[in-house]
Amino acid sequence: MVRALRVAAGALGFFSGLLTPVLTVRPFSVSLPSQEVAGPAWNLGRLNHVAIAVPDLERAMAFYRDMLGAQVSHTVPVPEHGVSVAFVNLGNTKMELLHPLGDNSPITGFLQKNKFGGMHHVCIEVDDINAAMMDLKKKKIRVLSEEVRIGAHGKPVIFLHPKDCGGVLVEMEQA
Amino acid sequence: MVRALRVAAGALGFFSGLLTPVLTVRPFSVSLPSQEVAGPAWNLGRLNHVAIAVPDLERAMAFYRDMLGAQVSHTVPVPEHGVSVAFVNLGNTKMELLHPLGDNSPITGFLQKNKFGGMHHVCIEVDDINAAMMDLKKKKIRVLSEEVRIGAHGKPVIFLHPKDCGGVLVEMEQA
Repeated sequence: MVRALRVAAGALGFFSGLLTPVLTVRPFSVSLPSQEVAGPAWNLGRLNHVAIAVPDLERAMAFYRDMLGAQVSHTVPVPEHGVSVAFVNLGNTKMELLHPLGDNSPITGFLQKNKFGGMHHVCIEVDDINAAMMDLKKKKIRVLSEEVRIGAHGKPVIFLHPKDCGGVLVEMEQA
Repeated sequence: MVRALRVAAGALGFFSGLLTPVLTVRPFSVSLPSQEVAGPAWNLGRLNHVAIAVPDLERAMAFYRDMLGAQVSHTVPVPEHGVSVAFVNLGNTKMELLHPLGDNSPITGFLQKNKFGGMHHVCIEVDDINAAMMDLKKKKIRVLSEEVRIGAHGKPVIFLHPKDCGGVLVEMEQA
């Protein structure tokens, strides 16, 4: 993991553990003749999920299932990323409940600062994650890794620095 | 505004100013014969929006529009609720960017604690806001008002106490 990501993860409790490197072999041309306007080489898609870090996963699942009547998945342990996950299906999108798994979970720090839990990040889909990363880096939006990584859902993702995103940790996931 | 809401709003920077009373005249029967199982009298719907409080609305709008290529609305001043609002259309749902308007904005306190901005609440639609409120109160979920109120979008809403919702301020809006 790159140093910049380590520093950001340490300082802000980011999802460093949820990122593993992806070998990106797809070529992507960014050189255009200067008279051409470089149109968007990638497109933003739908909101994939809102991630909520919770101190008590069973209690949070029971709240959405029994109090609100939502469809809630079973718990899915994702030990390689240090979290247990459950999904709340809201029809048009989902909420992702996250709880630390193991001793070095990447969300432990967040929960120490937010003892009752809280909104951790939003995940927005994109149609070309490599193009998005290159474009955003050109636009001076800080990406929290040098490369596209595989996220907790097994799909390529990047995270954007919240200070460049109105205070919000934004995950982008290849749709 | 009821005292409980004032206290919660003062302590946690909630959306107290976004709530104005609604006269609820629809009768709703909660008395069922004891042998019957009381099924859900209301249904949870889709995620209406994720609300983001931002310290610089133009900059946040420019981020989503120019950096991410999203459709972003014009700024909508809502002086009666002490906020300026802009919407980011993500297709399946939207993000609502909030910035204080006037001297007594209900999100000023939140931004003092979150200087770069941050995720403020989620809004989930319901098909019967009065039934939802009565049911949730019976289930001991704290509702931050005695009555259903009119929210910033002109629709009836309630807010649920984040300590009962895994640390998340949950707004419910009549669809």
